Amino acid sequence: MESREYRISIQVFYEDTDHSGVVYHANYLKYFERAREHVIGAQTLVRLWKETGIGFAVYKADVAFHDGAEFGDLLEIRSRFRQDSDYRQVWRQEAWRPNGKKPAVTADIHLVCLGRDRKLIPIPALVYP
Amino acid sequence: MESREYRISIQVFYEDTDHSGVVYHANYLKYFERAREHVIGAQTLVRLWKETGIGFAVYKADVAFHDGAEFGDLLEIRSRFRQDSDYRQVWRQEAWRPNGKKPAVTADIHLVCLGRDRKLIPIPALVYP
Amino acid sequence: MESREYRISIQVFYEDTDHSGVVYHANYLKYFERAREHVIGAQTLVRLWKETGIGFAVYKADVAFHDGAEFGDLLEIRSRFRQDSDYRQVWRQEAWRPNGKKPAVTADIHLVCLGRDRKLIPIPALVYP
Amino acid sequence: MESREYRISIQVFYEDTDHSGVVYHANYLKYFERAREHVIGAQTLVRLWKETGIGFAVYKADVAFHDGAEFGDLLEIRSRFRQDSDYRQVWRQEAWRPNGKKPAVTADIHLVCLGRDRKLIPIPALVYP
Repeated sequence: MESREYRISIQVFYEDTDHSGVVYHANYLKYFERAREHVIGAQTLVRLWKETGIGFAVYKADVAFHDGAEFGDLLEIRSRFRQDSDYRQVWRQEAWRPNGKKPAVTADIHLVCLGRDRKLIPIPALVYP
Repeated sequence: MESREYRISIQVFYEDTDHSGVVYHANYLKYFERAREHVIGAQTLVRLWKETGIGFAVYKADVAFHDGAEFGDLLEIRSRFRQDSDYRQVWRQEAWRPNGKKPAVTADIHLVCLGRDRKLIPIPALVYP
Repeated sequence: MESREYRISIQVFYEDTDHSGVVYHANYLKYFERAREHVIGAQTLVRLWKETGIGFAVYKADVAFHDGAEFGDLLEIRSRFRQDSDYRQVWRQEAWRPNGKKPAVTADIHLVCLGRDRKLIPIPALVYP
Repeated sequence: MESREYRISIQVFYEDTDHSGVVYHANYLKYFERAREHVIGAQTLVRLWKETGIGFAVYKADVAFHDGAEFGDLLEIRSRFRQDSDYRQVWRQEAWRPNGKKPAVTADIHLVCLGRDRKLIPIPALVYP
């Protein structure tokens, strides 16, 4: 079962671009993580971390870059996720430029959960789709 | 003449923290820049850059760190600015943690404008207080 | 034909970690890029950019994260590359922790070259294996 | 008493620049930190952190930006430090561009030490000049 599609807007700032004039490729991973934290809820993640020492970790990231976003773009990040197993959550995320006909960047991000000892644990139910 | 105080909220994400558990010090400069771009208007800055090659540059930054913001904090960035001369704009900016009694971080940021040749030019009137 | 394996060391600094205590996932893409720039030669890239407006862009990045590097680790980045076509260079890169038995992070990074107008161009011969 | 001057070289990479073509201002704080960690010794800092939970924190950073470093520059970071008191170490740091006649960026960085509870503690003797 896949979640509904979540959409948030992210402004491209000076700090995000590089000297070629477009967003530095690694920064899309930051945008995608901000979107995931927004969907799951920053406060849920904080509580999980403080009370149980559980955190999410990216296990795999397959990213394709089709177009370069520019300074000033208001990107729309679209996110869906599904549980692949008790231990793995897979997010399909896209970054859309204003008036884009296709996504500028697409990614499949595989997440796992780690306990305080950094061992794999089942993903807590509170962050299911 | 000083501008009114502008306030925007910025969420602290994983990417902003370091292994000591708090926001990495250099990242407050990013927060402060995001706040300035918000006040001046990203589209104004983009137009200025594309049409005339004019950009802002930080000339001086005096920053004091009193408290460390944590993952999940929704910071409030408070900003005021004044024209010190035709060539220099000085911003007084603060980062407040939720329920903070004092600002966590304060900064005086001096901005100048550079033309396409990276020579100093007067600050365009459109971004005056 | 694949290039020989290049190895460079990269120190993990405060700035690279996040509050979970390990390197923030997006930062490995920065490490891998530093390694590629080292192999190709920063001065070659600068000349290409200044004289012809040609730059490299990441077109695809498939990254797998097996272990988290910590503050203070001296990582070894191992890189090989091959020409997949006149237009595409594929890098196989790994990040090894000190005394690691397996790579901590592995990646396939696909690069293309863009001209001044951001249109695809053949990869210049000077950066062939 | 001031320490001798330490010099290390830092390569400016794509990731460090922004769309205006020069190094993003906040990144000099990262360069300066890398230089300090180099002087003190990353392994010393790691041991301090793991064995005692003691870490350094930047308390104050006064930075002046005179010139913008470009992609490909091999910067020289020059650092001196002194103990201002048992609790405060002040670093005078400069970033020099290749063939620069003056430093591109200068900074006074005030450091303190924090214990596991994030309370101020005297700076351990092992990192004295």
